[in-house]
Amino acid sequence: MIKDLENELANDFDIHFNNHELLDEAFTQASYVNEHPNQGLKFYERIEFLGDAVLQLTVSEYIYQRYPKMPQGELTRLRAAMVQEDSFSKFALECHFDKYIRLGHGEEMAGARQRSSLLCDIFESFIGALYLDQGKKAVEKFITKVIFPKLDQGWFDHAVDYKTSLQEFLQRNGDVDIDYKVAKEEGPANARQYTVNVYADNQKIGSGTGTSKKHAEMEAAKAALNDLRKTSK
Amino acid sequence: MIKDLENELANDFDIHFNNHELLDEAFTQASYVNEHPNQGLKFYERIEFLGDAVLQLTVSEYIYQRYPKMPQGELTRLRAAMVQEDSFSKFALECHFDKYIRLGHGEEMAGARQRSSLLCDIFESFIGALYLDQGKKAVEKFITKVIFPKLDQGWFDHAVDYKTSLQEFLQRNGDVDIDYKVAKEEGPANARQYTVNVYADNQKIGSGTGTSKKHAEMEAAKAALNDLRKTSK
Repeated sequence: MIKDLENELANDFDIHFNNHELLDEAFTQASYVNEHPNQGLKFYERIEFLGDAVLQLTVSEYIYQRYPKMPQGELTRLRAAMVQEDSFSKFALECHFDKYIRLGHGEEMAGARQRSSLLCDIFESFIGALYLDQGKKAVEKFITKVIFPKLDQGWFDHAVDYKTSLQEFLQRNGDVDIDYKVAKEEGPANARQYTVNVYADNQKIGSGTGTSKKHAEMEAAKAALNDLRKTSK
Repeated sequence: MIKDLENELANDFDIHFNNHELLDEAFTQASYVNEHPNQGLKFYERIEFLGDAVLQLTVSEYIYQRYPKMPQGELTRLRAAMVQEDSFSKFALECHFDKYIRLGHGEEMAGARQRSSLLCDIFESFIGALYLDQGKKAVEKFITKVIFPKLDQGWFDHAVDYKTSLQEFLQRNGDVDIDYKVAKEEGPANARQYTVNVYADNQKIGSGTGTSKKHAEMEAAKAALNDLRKTSK
């Protein structure tokens, strides 16, 4: 079973484990060890402890470098959204990790394999094993494929209040007049589309589209922030 | 002022910063920046965000490697004791970081320089700056001097229930009979000293001394655990 996982890791991520026992440990739940005593098996919890801290740092470092002007409070909210159970369990499913977990019979019957908390644990323990086997650079390479693209896909947008962030960003060095104006309104009543422009001291700095004015404003603020952060890099 | 800090870091820790601005940023509070506008100063909060995650990982990795049999729950409790505000603020004082913080006048008058939460922040931001300037190995070298020796000095003993840990450790692979016996009781009534031995299946595995039976038992369990963990490394 671990052989299949190794093939998948090799094909999808070009990852080749040196210490196969680490990978075994990372995908084995305590319930399985209890059902197979005297085999000297280990379960994932200790590696998960380490993997959790590895993810905290690699995610922190990435958003710290990527958003050089983002204040601490916003970095903290964004990190919290990225490293939460709901996110990790989705990443685990995306990598098909659920197929390879070794569970005891009782846990299997109870549906543990689909349990979000277990999937999250396994994602963390996989990261811990990868870190122990190949170091931080290998973890960065993996999560650059699995986690970071989700930032651009808007997975974590709910964590960030873009209108407030834009205001904080622009008014850092004094007062700036920020204005949102509806530029376009189109489509039938039941599928209305709004386009909103955002202005700083009457200069247009961003534009966004959404199914409500509020959503379009949020998108406009996000676009403006992305541009501003790029130019001030 | 940062020059003095740099001298102290060089003398005490053989640390030589390449990017002096990082060190400036790590020791500057927002209140100071507000009082010195238009100087392009930065305050420590973003670097602290990063330093916090760096400390989480380096401490996690150290205790993971040092205690190869310690279960996750105990690792988590121990880490929590090591990375808490109270610990970090003491480390900051030990390194004389309090002398070098740049504070606004109001914060200075309010006694912020002695505030535990600020000292903790500055310890984290220093670690963040060291990490950005010289990488993880340099951080490990620094905290090997500043944090890890405290483990042997018993700073974090309160986080670990040694009697329960010993029981969990010994009974992992089946039932073991654990027994604590007072071996010696000496000294006057107001300064009584107890020596307790701990036995596993009638074999002595540790001994401890304390001013109460309970404390001596705890010390005996700790000694036994330390021995067991060494031999099973």
